[in-house]
Amino acid sequence: MDNTSNSLFYPYLYLVWTDEWLSGNEFNTFNRFINEQSWLSSANKQWLAGQLDPASPPSRETLQQWKAAIDRALLEQPDIQHLFALGLTLGGDQKLVAHQPAFLQLENDLGLGEEAIAGFRRAALGKTAASKTSSELDIATVTDWFNGSQAAMINQVKTLLSQPAFAYETSTDTAVKRQKVLEWCKILARENMGNKAYPTAYGGGGDIEAYFSIMETLSYHDLSMVIKFGVQFGLWGMSVWQLGTEKHYAKWLKDIGSLALPGCFAMTETNHGSNVKGLETTATYQHSRQSFIIHTPNPKAQKEYIGNAALHGQMATVFAKLIINGKDYGVNAFVVPLRNGEGQTLPGVTIGDCGQKMGLNGVDNGTISFDQVEIPKENMLDRFARVNDAGEFESPIPSDNRRFFTMLGTLVGGRIGIPRSALSASKSGLSIAIQYSDQRRQFGPEGGAEVPILNYRMHQRRLMPKLATTYALHTALQYLTQRFLQRKEADMQEIEALAAGLKAYTTWFTRDTLQECREATGGKGYLSENRIDALKNDTEIYTTFEGDNTVLMQLVAKSRLAEFRKAFGKMDARGMIGYVFENAKTMVTEKNPMITRRTDDAHLLDYHFHLQAFEHREKTILASAARRLKKLVDGGMDGFDAANVVQHQLMDVAAAYLERVILEQFHLSIGRVQDPRFAASLTRLCQLFALSALDKDKGWFLEDGYMEPVKTKAIRKLVNQLCWDIRQEAVPLVRAFDIPAQCLSAPIAF
Amino acid sequence: MDNTSNSLFYPYLYLVWTDEWLSGNEFNTFNRFINEQSWLSSANKQWLAGQLDPASPPSRETLQQWKAAIDRALLEQPDIQHLFALGLTLGGDQKLVAHQPAFLQLENDLGLGEEAIAGFRRAALGKTAASKTSSELDIATVTDWFNGSQAAMINQVKTLLSQPAFAYETSTDTAVKRQKVLEWCKILARENMGNKAYPTAYGGGGDIEAYFSIMETLSYHDLSMVIKFGVQFGLWGMSVWQLGTEKHYAKWLKDIGSLALPGCFAMTETNHGSNVKGLETTATYQHSRQSFIIHTPNPKAQKEYIGNAALHGQMATVFAKLIINGKDYGVNAFVVPLRNGEGQTLPGVTIGDCGQKMGLNGVDNGTISFDQVEIPKENMLDRFARVNDAGEFESPIPSDNRRFFTMLGTLVGGRIGIPRSALSASKSGLSIAIQYSDQRRQFGPEGGAEVPILNYRMHQRRLMPKLATTYALHTALQYLTQRFLQRKEADMQEIEALAAGLKAYTTWFTRDTLQECREATGGKGYLSENRIDALKNDTEIYTTFEGDNTVLMQLVAKSRLAEFRKAFGKMDARGMIGYVFENAKTMVTEKNPMITRRTDDAHLLDYHFHLQAFEHREKTILASAARRLKKLVDGGMDGFDAANVVQHQLMDVAAAYLERVILEQFHLSIGRVQDPRFAASLTRLCQLFALSALDKDKGWFLEDGYMEPVKTKAIRKLVNQLCWDIRQEAVPLVRAFDIPAQCLSAPIAF
Repeated sequence: MDNTSNSLFYPYLYLVWTDEWLSGNEFNTFNRFINEQSWLSSANKQWLAGQLDPASPPSRETLQQWKAAIDRALLEQPDIQHLFALGLTLGGDQKLVAHQPAFLQLENDLGLGEEAIAGFRRAALGKTAASKTSSELDIATVTDWFNGSQAAMINQVKTLLSQPAFAYETSTDTAVKRQKVLEWCKILARENMGNKAYPTAYGGGGDIEAYFSIMETLSYHDLSMVIKFGVQFGLWGMSVWQLGTEKHYAKWLKDIGSLALPGCFAMTETNHGSNVKGLETTATYQHSRQSFIIHTPNPKAQKEYIGNAALHGQMATVFAKLIINGKDYGVNAFVVPLRNGEGQTLPGVTIGDCGQKMGLNGVDNGTISFDQVEIPKENMLDRFARVNDAGEFESPIPSDNRRFFTMLGTLVGGRIGIPRSALSASKSGLSIAIQYSDQRRQFGPEGGAEVPILNYRMHQRRLMPKLATTYALHTALQYLTQRFLQRKEADMQEIEALAAGLKAYTTWFTRDTLQECREATGGKGYLSENRIDALKNDTEIYTTFEGDNTVLMQLVAKSRLAEFRKAFGKMDARGMIGYVFENAKTMVTEKNPMITRRTDDAHLLDYHFHLQAFEHREKTILASAARRLKKLVDGGMDGFDAANVVQHQLMDVAAAYLERVILEQFHLSIGRVQDPRFAASLTRLCQLFALSALDKDKGWFLEDGYMEPVKTKAIRKLVNQLCWDIRQEAVPLVRAFDIPAQCLSAPIAF
Repeated sequence: MDNTSNSLFYPYLYLVWTDEWLSGNEFNTFNRFINEQSWLSSANKQWLAGQLDPASPPSRETLQQWKAAIDRALLEQPDIQHLFALGLTLGGDQKLVAHQPAFLQLENDLGLGEEAIAGFRRAALGKTAASKTSSELDIATVTDWFNGSQAAMINQVKTLLSQPAFAYETSTDTAVKRQKVLEWCKILARENMGNKAYPTAYGGGGDIEAYFSIMETLSYHDLSMVIKFGVQFGLWGMSVWQLGTEKHYAKWLKDIGSLALPGCFAMTETNHGSNVKGLETTATYQHSRQSFIIHTPNPKAQKEYIGNAALHGQMATVFAKLIINGKDYGVNAFVVPLRNGEGQTLPGVTIGDCGQKMGLNGVDNGTISFDQVEIPKENMLDRFARVNDAGEFESPIPSDNRRFFTMLGTLVGGRIGIPRSALSASKSGLSIAIQYSDQRRQFGPEGGAEVPILNYRMHQRRLMPKLATTYALHTALQYLTQRFLQRKEADMQEIEALAAGLKAYTTWFTRDTLQECREATGGKGYLSENRIDALKNDTEIYTTFEGDNTVLMQLVAKSRLAEFRKAFGKMDARGMIGYVFENAKTMVTEKNPMITRRTDDAHLLDYHFHLQAFEHREKTILASAARRLKKLVDGGMDGFDAANVVQHQLMDVAAAYLERVILEQFHLSIGRVQDPRFAASLTRLCQLFALSALDKDKGWFLEDGYMEPVKTKAIRKLVNQLCWDIRQEAVPLVRAFDIPAQCLSAPIAF
């Protein structure tokens, strides 16, 4: 008898500990009964004795777990008449039926007759109306967990955002919005928030971690402000700092940090967005004049969607192909003045306004084209490549390709800031939708009052997995940030892939979350005053900018394939199949029917089951994609075509990798939590994150044979149960985001 | 040898018919060879002879089918060296290997050596760059199919929308937008489009079908205009017509149809949206004054989101609980004046403005509350209930509940107009995204030109299933419209369920489609000028208004369960299990491993396979939900709680039903198409619709055992292949929507 059959005793144990009528005497009766059962293993007896020690009562968590199992059994088996039948349903082994008379005698001795079952059933039933918010979780503990070492910085930003100057601008006039956003950014600059990451030598705060926390916290407010802030201090400033050298820092960094010198990051062109290597703008070196000519060779090569360009930018980091003596040296970065101090556009520069957008209308995106604009030689940002005194190209990185990706790699910070900003928007949306749904009532039992819509199962299925994933992603983005802060050259490829992947995963998650929030709040969610409008439309472009998500997911997959190849060398197709077969053998215990069909709660809620399933999926999909690609290329197909044939699988490779990392980081993070009450809440969230992901991808697990139908069905039930359980804590869990009231603002959230 | 092994000959047949070097002589060689193969069944020989008749060449379709099968085999098996090996891969039976020498001799005789395989492979490979739009489909034929008998009306609307007066208003100022929308509606009224459905006796067109076509066609233009139009002529006008009697028609219908009398449909209250039966506004009858007092008892009982209320409405159909002598007779409808002719609000009426919304800002939504507003007795819309001369309540439908649902049932037209409007928005989005993606190039093979992004598999997976479903939904909504136009009392419940379900299914589909369109068009899709902004934000509320989709899906499920109960009477749980078991037995042929594992194209592309799978899913889910509900209720659970426990399953019940109806209607519609070229295109779209749905729900089919992994994997491949094939026709297929250029407007679509 394995330990899962301990569950046979749950109903008795639960009643012993919760029924106020039971006294010490009953404990003795129960203990005696157990000692008399010779068929119980000593392990069982030991476990039961531990559960019946009056000096060490079971935790609230354990009691809840027993109760949840009991409730489920009663829902599934309405004909249960006594506790022993209930126990058998939980414990499973029908052979034990022989012991029924002894158990019925025990029930009699303890005074637990049919009434006990009826009591359980009453509690399990009619519960839609009874479900409500519990206030047992200590919100401050959770907020501390979110803030971590950055609490002081985060609270400073929140205090600032709560000042009257940061009241929202509700005008629909783009000019008014842009002006307001500029004003806000000036206040932030004045508070030394924009230059927080820059070196102290140039007036900065020298604290990159704090800069990310600022971006994240600002994102509880107007996202146009966040993006304008990011364009100025992140993209424009960081490009000077990361791609330039001392002379550039000395000249510009302080003014960038104070917003005295507003600027742009001019990479994207009309015809080249994702494919940056195809940029057509040229920077032609003129040795005689020690200068470059920046030129837009055709209208579709104009810079497009450039933030800060339409109105405020005075300079831009322009990405252009460097041409020396007619030879193309690939894409490099140059600082090009756009406007004078009075805001007049300089000769040769033509600026257009991108006009009205779906969102982010406080950001002045524009187009820029250059007609033979001359800039001094020193305006080339020359950390990775320069033109020497002889007028020759020089670089510490000889390969054009590698140099290009090294340059881009220095800008990876943007792919950390964006998902952290997106996650804040998800938090705002969930705070609004969950708090409203806890108050909003609609329909109810015949003759009864209407019930909060958060009590409906579908409503829970919409919002609870999103809440769980928000917590999970918080830990993954913290991990990414720490990896970035502690990066070494050798880790860069992995960090870049992780950043690209989490950017895509998080921004898609935010898109889906805000969609659910909108629908979950009905007509109220459609009114702009409740802010889901702005949150949704402003973050809509997050899935495209800083790298189109679909393209990024393929980058992640390619990086995983490269790792795979490294691990397996020049293995041929047959060798790879062998590897997968080996892999399958090592997992024989997992694919054993005892496992593929195992459906008890203890197993399904166990982190190690979750992790093994995630890891199995990740490895299997990766090996399968690698095998298929190799087969296609071996068959004579061009690599580009082959990648297209398996493009769908590449997306899966990336997603499986990302979800495994997120799960691991969430689990590790829970391990560091001291407060057991909070750790239990986090554990439930982690279970819901994991099981929702498995449920969503059950088609894959069934196809693969890793799970059998009985198991995927049990997982679905458990997802519903976890949603039901977490609903009780959902309001405290969103209050813990601690979003300032002036930021949240939505009337329905209060 | 069953007929699937005919595929062994595909490579030979394909080459015989397409290789210009093969002459009549080779036909003879081939025919002789076939006659010599004694192992071929006479059925095989007969089929082959039919394929080799020079007087009756295979259709282009057949050739394409052979070619597609060949291409797939070559992608999967890169080591194939000769045609016979290729044939074996297609035909499958390895026992035939014994005949290899004879086939190789045939290949030699026909001059088809390894070069033939290389030729196939060259065509199959390197194809990402080569894929492009084919212009073989006759666009006008497709447009005619969409327009059907309504062509004249539809073209009249399109002509009108192409006039300068209908140029889009781009101001972000809500006041300007509302004014413009009102002007447009006045033009439409002048053109007798608003009153098209009303009886001719009251100045109307007497043509409900035409009214739906007008709504649908207007929806290629600004959706604020469509909703304002729908509020005035659909909701306000139809409520008077459907709920009122002669005296009301005579008094108001003409002025409503001409927009001389703008009005509102005031049903929803702040506290009661979905749960209309819970409305709190009262209409208290005063016999002494032959009048009703309309009153808002508390602030949360105010009418909310009421279109036409904030600015233009002069009257409203107000839904309120009728109170006579202190007794509540349930919700009824009353016409209440709101403003005088000068636009001043009348005494006792307080109107608020809902303010800025996520979309539809050209519609003046407002709140209305009433402080003891007196209206004359004759303002009660009294078709279904009235107060008689003695001051007593009278109704031809005694049950309050049944009367209430009969009243709502008359308004079902809204649930036809809304999904048809939503589908037009999907068509606009797809026209923009697909035409742009056919032009937009990004990345490409090493050293080659960049390729259109529509050539990428992921891009196809995003857009092609949506295109297929758009065609499918067109047929389903046509069917719904016809059922409604030809309705009989006995059909009403079914029609209402179908309308509710297709409203939910189509508006969710539109939400998802426009999301894909936005992301598929990248930064360009974020610019308002490209219209995805307006399409997306305007239709966002379609999932909520005219019934929240989640609530509607549950209505559909409950209607299906009622049908189920009707069919099985008071069957007990055991009886139902028996039914399902019986059902399983009748499907023994389908659950036979030969079927659950069958993966040949002929089977997977066959409509009958699709329909059987859809029907099986529908029946099984319905029976399972019914069984579970019964079990819960038998176990003592309140019906309300039981419905909540199975809420997730109820959504599946509704979805499975709807998809089966859509598939059936699409198939029936294709059967009526004369042009074989177009029928073939539609068949591919139908196959993609069906297989995408099966692929998406493969988890269910695997859990159920209806399919085995080998089959679900084959379906996924076929979905990819169909996306690839349909991509070639995607541009003509969206051009066929024939959206006027001034409506489509997006610069990237041209």
